[in-house]
Amino acid sequence: MLKFSYSIPTNVHFGKGRIKVLAKEIKKYGSKVLLTYGGGSIKRNGLYDSIVEIFNENDISFCELNGIDPNPRLTSVNEGIKICKENNIDFILAVGGGSVIDCSKIIAAGYHYEGDPWDFFIGKARIKQALPIGTILTLAATGSEMNGNAVISNMETEEKLGTFGESLKPKFSILDPTYTMTVPVKQTAAGTADIMSHVFEQYFSPTEGAFLQDRLAEAVLKTCIEYGPIAIKNPENYEARANLMWSSSIALNGLLTYGKITDWATHGMEHELSAIYDITHGIGLAILTPNWMEHVLDNGTVDKFVEYGVNVWGISLEEDKYSVARKAIEKTREFFKGLGIPMTLKEVGINEERLQEMAEKATKFRPLGGFKKLDKNDVLEIYKASL
Amino acid sequence: MLKFSYSIPTNVHFGKGRIKVLAKEIKKYGSKVLLTYGGGSIKRNGLYDSIVEIFNENDISFCELNGIDPNPRLTSVNEGIKICKENNIDFILAVGGGSVIDCSKIIAAGYHYEGDPWDFFIGKARIKQALPIGTILTLAATGSEMNGNAVISNMETEEKLGTFGESLKPKFSILDPTYTMTVPVKQTAAGTADIMSHVFEQYFSPTEGAFLQDRLAEAVLKTCIEYGPIAIKNPENYEARANLMWSSSIALNGLLTYGKITDWATHGMEHELSAIYDITHGIGLAILTPNWMEHVLDNGTVDKFVEYGVNVWGISLEEDKYSVARKAIEKTREFFKGLGIPMTLKEVGINEERLQEMAEKATKFRPLGGFKKLDKNDVLEIYKASL
Repeated sequence: MLKFSYSIPTNVHFGKGRIKVLAKEIKKYGSKVLLTYGGGSIKRNGLYDSIVEIFNENDISFCELNGIDPNPRLTSVNEGIKICKENNIDFILAVGGGSVIDCSKIIAAGYHYEGDPWDFFIGKARIKQALPIGTILTLAATGSEMNGNAVISNMETEEKLGTFGESLKPKFSILDPTYTMTVPVKQTAAGTADIMSHVFEQYFSPTEGAFLQDRLAEAVLKTCIEYGPIAIKNPENYEARANLMWSSSIALNGLLTYGKITDWATHGMEHELSAIYDITHGIGLAILTPNWMEHVLDNGTVDKFVEYGVNVWGISLEEDKYSVARKAIEKTREFFKGLGIPMTLKEVGINEERLQEMAEKATKFRPLGGFKKLDKNDVLEIYKASL
Repeated sequence: MLKFSYSIPTNVHFGKGRIKVLAKEIKKYGSKVLLTYGGGSIKRNGLYDSIVEIFNENDISFCELNGIDPNPRLTSVNEGIKICKENNIDFILAVGGGSVIDCSKIIAAGYHYEGDPWDFFIGKARIKQALPIGTILTLAATGSEMNGNAVISNMETEEKLGTFGESLKPKFSILDPTYTMTVPVKQTAAGTADIMSHVFEQYFSPTEGAFLQDRLAEAVLKTCIEYGPIAIKNPENYEARANLMWSSSIALNGLLTYGKITDWATHGMEHELSAIYDITHGIGLAILTPNWMEHVLDNGTVDKFVEYGVNVWGISLEEDKYSVARKAIEKTREFFKGLGIPMTLKEVGINEERLQEMAEKATKFRPLGGFKKLDKNDVLEIYKASL
């Protein structure tokens, strides 16, 4: 187990009806709010009206930034910063999934930065300060509701990059599982795959002796395996939605990373796909994951796959370790397939054409991965195996 | 899964040598420190000297309160409050295990309270404000390093009671596993039993659908089962000490409680034992636990014991649920025994004499337990079975 510093300061209000705390929480930090959201599902399900009513009853003034896309754009960030500056905004409330939250985080950081907010992503500037933000989560997937990460797409340069800031951690997040009951099947499946991928990126690690962290990671995986299919079959099952929602936060609030080297190669490869083809992040991850697993399986990594197979999938230990490992990989692929996820790149409209270019971009600065290093050729092979 | 509010604000600095952050962390809050510790092991192992050197180099002045006993006394609390008031202390650094930390927390709260600090324990006053505290942990057991709980013994009234305050949560905790390498075998065993008991109190719950929390709880149990024996056999095994230390914090920082009704009957029963007989808390818990399990096992609880047996101990599912449950209980008893813990009350000097009195005191205000309610007769039976 490696050294670490634990800091998870976000207060989470979890459960049905927890929106009641909204005004009190916001007023700790400000009263002029930028309300950010996506395509308008919160207008259809009544959440928007509830928020506006709370704002009006509590003398909270607000501006809006809506239409934030999945794979949120730098253009939305710039638009948001402009609104904040023109209206002396002192708090940002992000209502949505990871895209809305990530976009809001960079608006919050960009507000205090004179240059181009893209600088935060290309290593030209570090995030030192940000407007306080809170979130109301409507999609269980990215974990952005409880961490300091943000991923933004720059459509001009066809890049999708991530950054981090301690000050980006939301002050509070309201997690009401009922808000996710109207999430369509496809997004529920993609969200489940995203949560599991976050766990894989931390679980598959060369660090030895982070036993507790590995067992905690398996707990989240087992929860996704239990409840992903239930939420798809019965979207209004509260326990399924609650367990997936809390899993999304636990999977990426730091708990599973502390004390370990992590991997993140699959995310690196997927970001290239969605930067160019704008595919759903969780779908891209699900397609790549089993092929990544097969590619990195070797004498140095096989024991970890055996651990995964036995502890997560209940596969019996047998003499041939590779047999156990391959069964575990197959279980993973079958699970995603069972959620209704298209499991090849071709099915999501990606052909061979730009694979070479994406493999080069993904490894431009350094090899990908902490579990096993991947160079350009490795990435290309994984892309090809995923076709 | 029930509603909950998550708040774990303590910053943890984990790993060998993390004491380097001490001065910087303290200076966020103050510069006149009350340094609290126990029997002087920190003088023997050099930790005391390191702290004093850091204080001197960073212009941090300090007073001391030492000799804080296991099962910390109200008298120590009062002494500490007096020192704080006389010396305008603005920060408390607790160096030790749960006893030192708990005592320091009530000093911190008592500093801002005009009345008797025992009021916080008998429901006469609530903790609203406290001096900021930090901890350097030297024993993996109570989890006090990351929560707002404190337990204090009043020797006059022969009572050992607990309280809670949001403001009691340490601002930071330094968790260096090497500090626990000199913990004697008996205390290592008792600490492991204490951690496991904390998990049991939260795991055995009537709440359904807190699936993720239950799997997280099992992760901590498996870690204790893996590393407790290793730390006893090889006290300087870093991975064992690290995993036990981080388990102690995770077991009782709230993570396993959120969204669930919890039990705490075993702790309630044990507090009566140590209030009168001043036994080691973890030993008392280990003695009572298997007998509590046997007593509460019935048609309403058997499924949870089966879950425990299969998931934690790897017992095979079989048709007779009670057989699986009893095997799980036996495994628990054998595990504690294997750590070298005396598994009867008689071995720790407790006979039948005052069992009736303790059973009455334990249930004076209300029945014990959330998993299964225990009245006076239940408690007496469990005490008797533990003789």
